[in-house]
Amino acid sequence: MLVLDKLKEYLKDNRDDIIGDLRSLIKHPSVSAQGIGIDECAGTLNAIVRDSGIESKLIRIEEGNPIIYGELKGDKRDGKTLLLYSHYDVQPAEPLDKWRYNPFSGIVIDDKIYGRGAADSKGNVIAIVKAIKAMLEMYEELPLNVKILIEGEEEISSINLPRFVEKNKAMLKADACVCFDGSLNPSGTPNIFAGLKGLLYVELRCSTANADTHSSLAPLIDNAAWVLIKVLNGMKRNGKIAIPEWYDDIRVPSSDDIALLEDIEYDLESIKSSYGLKEFIHNVKGRAALKKLLFEPTCNIAGIHSGYTAAGSKTVLPSTAYAKLDFRLVYNQSPDKLFKNLERYMEEYGIEVIKLGALEPSKTDVKADIVKSTREAARKVYGNDPTLFPNSWASGPDYVFTKILGIPSVWTGCSPANANIHAPNEFTGIGNVMSGICYISSIMQEFGSLKQKNE
Amino acid sequence: MLVLDKLKEYLKDNRDDIIGDLRSLIKHPSVSAQGIGIDECAGTLNAIVRDSGIESKLIRIEEGNPIIYGELKGDKRDGKTLLLYSHYDVQPAEPLDKWRYNPFSGIVIDDKIYGRGAADSKGNVIAIVKAIKAMLEMYEELPLNVKILIEGEEEISSINLPRFVEKNKAMLKADACVCFDGSLNPSGTPNIFAGLKGLLYVELRCSTANADTHSSLAPLIDNAAWVLIKVLNGMKRNGKIAIPEWYDDIRVPSSDDIALLEDIEYDLESIKSSYGLKEFIHNVKGRAALKKLLFEPTCNIAGIHSGYTAAGSKTVLPSTAYAKLDFRLVYNQSPDKLFKNLERYMEEYGIEVIKLGALEPSKTDVKADIVKSTREAARKVYGNDPTLFPNSWASGPDYVFTKILGIPSVWTGCSPANANIHAPNEFTGIGNVMSGICYISSIMQEFGSLKQKNE
Repeated sequence: MLVLDKLKEYLKDNRDDIIGDLRSLIKHPSVSAQGIGIDECAGTLNAIVRDSGIESKLIRIEEGNPIIYGELKGDKRDGKTLLLYSHYDVQPAEPLDKWRYNPFSGIVIDDKIYGRGAADSKGNVIAIVKAIKAMLEMYEELPLNVKILIEGEEEISSINLPRFVEKNKAMLKADACVCFDGSLNPSGTPNIFAGLKGLLYVELRCSTANADTHSSLAPLIDNAAWVLIKVLNGMKRNGKIAIPEWYDDIRVPSSDDIALLEDIEYDLESIKSSYGLKEFIHNVKGRAALKKLLFEPTCNIAGIHSGYTAAGSKTVLPSTAYAKLDFRLVYNQSPDKLFKNLERYMEEYGIEVIKLGALEPSKTDVKADIVKSTREAARKVYGNDPTLFPNSWASGPDYVFTKILGIPSVWTGCSPANANIHAPNEFTGIGNVMSGICYISSIMQEFGSLKQKNE
Repeated sequence: MLVLDKLKEYLKDNRDDIIGDLRSLIKHPSVSAQGIGIDECAGTLNAIVRDSGIESKLIRIEEGNPIIYGELKGDKRDGKTLLLYSHYDVQPAEPLDKWRYNPFSGIVIDDKIYGRGAADSKGNVIAIVKAIKAMLEMYEELPLNVKILIEGEEEISSINLPRFVEKNKAMLKADACVCFDGSLNPSGTPNIFAGLKGLLYVELRCSTANADTHSSLAPLIDNAAWVLIKVLNGMKRNGKIAIPEWYDDIRVPSSDDIALLEDIEYDLESIKSSYGLKEFIHNVKGRAALKKLLFEPTCNIAGIHSGYTAAGSKTVLPSTAYAKLDFRLVYNQSPDKLFKNLERYMEEYGIEVIKLGALEPSKTDVKADIVKSTREAARKVYGNDPTLFPNSWASGPDYVFTKILGIPSVWTGCSPANANIHAPNEFTGIGNVMSGICYISSIMQEFGSLKQKNE
């Protein structure tokens, strides 16, 4: 039986090993969108996993980034099997000039480790691996069978993961999944999500002529930026997405989900202060803001570019304009179906649509065993109730577990709140990583000691 | 009396000097928007002018780019004085990857000289200077008094020129001005403009939060790109600028201007084929297209940028968005007044407006002497009628001559049509430069031999 105090002692003694390995992961950029430092990071991670006691494999993916996979039997014959998922790839570090430190240094300042991926999600990856190592070194065996799956394409919509999971259903068979790729909330307890939004990420390309021209010809020649702006503007009406049939497949949240929403104490106000906001869109507040955050599909402009954007002035009429859009989808919108709607919509304006990523939304019953075990583990490690959300505002490949493997799954993690993920100056706390190791160890303990349903 | 055939012989003999000096000007970038290579270019130009026989000066401008100024008395006591204007600065060369050759090499291929500024307007500058040199070497004196003024800020709205002209009215006193910064039309004869549009160039800055955030917060946090797009979209309605009082000060073209419009044979169709267009905006054609081009004020997006625009996908919610806009103004809109209108309009949306440049519109009577002389010179050099426009679709600092000095002014030049000005792969033809020298020489001859009005 896991004794947390004993584990904490162990972690003190092994701090250099844990932090050193996290820093070496951060030093390999592993930016999947840009294909930088992927193989080096995967190789380093595989060595770190194998050092924990799992004989993992680096599985090469055709035209994709390697997956690190490993499994280990627990102490019970026919005991439960838990699949642990995370990712070693990171978002691009741009804009580089906004970083206080080199984003790939993993520099430690005041017990914080700075770097792209420190919080999302290399800190979580290290927590998984070092929890297993700790349990094995302390108890010589695990309280349940464990399978770990760490991919390198989460930040580019896990493009190869669905195929991999589909092909390896038997190998990946498990009773439940924990996706360890999340954060604590501002009050310092973990967020646990029993559902994730889906994602459709596209690039729009608008072209009005075969070359840029002098802006004096503006009375006669269409400007690609103006055309794209008009089309983008028309895509939203009163805050809603104005593309036909966009909302048709949405299922309203279950009564359990809505009931849970009422219980959530989540400090949305801290988001306002973090970003210097006077109010949220339409001045929504409290429960209404939370419901909007969790259950509203979005259309976000992640980037737009056209013409001359360097210093000073240039009187050019741009012939091309680009925008990157990410649509968050809610249960049970289909990214493939909506992509086709979007293509049809854009066809009328002669705008090309390129799909850069797609994730289906995912949902797990809030009363599932793995939800209970994760909640209990968080309570024990963090000293008070975690925040259980019926759905997340973010997206991830959770659906490969709930829809393809057909098992319940929770999304949680140990990174600090407001850790600047996907933004400059991302960091995690050393304390956060250490608590994360305790959290994963406790989840294994809790889920492993639950009675089998069919016993 | 100028004999064109003799001049052409001279030009053959001096080809290396002329082309060599043009290439050395192109090799100094002199990008005024970026402050690159300005002083080197000005110094080189001053040496080239002095070599022509005019003891020019490089006049330093406080917080601005040097002006090359020189004057030379002609053969007649109390003869006419012609002011010759052009500029040595150039547009930025970006996007660099679209150039077939280094934009600052001045490489010669098939009798074309490629490089940023080859056509706009270093080829024209060389034509002025070498025309004076040729006349002096062939005839030992000029047929009229000449003042030359070559500035280094034309591509950034001639920000210091109005003050310079205002301060030096006596020095710059002249009977007329020729702004030699233009092109031939597709049929190979010069365009001559008796008026130019004004310009207001601004940057809009929109900020919605104090940092970029993860796009999963899109249900709650305003995206700066969306805000800017909505505002930009609202600035235009049915192709018109929807900012209050924008059209109030416009004077309708004079009856002479409209009559002239009827005579113009200008091949707008070649613009369509150059840029691969099926039709112009609103499918406007012929005379109506020309009238729109010459007399319609515009609002052009020269550039827009927000968020992540590098390779692949990044799920970021941008907190800032920028756009560069150039407004072309027609007689007699005031850039200063319209800037204030725009500021007021943007204030409501919390968008900051920065003025990057302003030029007033300018107008010269199409029956002025300098118009007649320039037209006659073009006829003689190019073998058929030039195209005289009552107004240009482009902008320039012509108003400093018409409004501050109070003299008639024409805008013309010798660069080839469709020379990719303000775009990649700009070029001029060696033949165009040589004809340009003949053209300038003839203008001096024609204007110098006109009887004084008050004789």
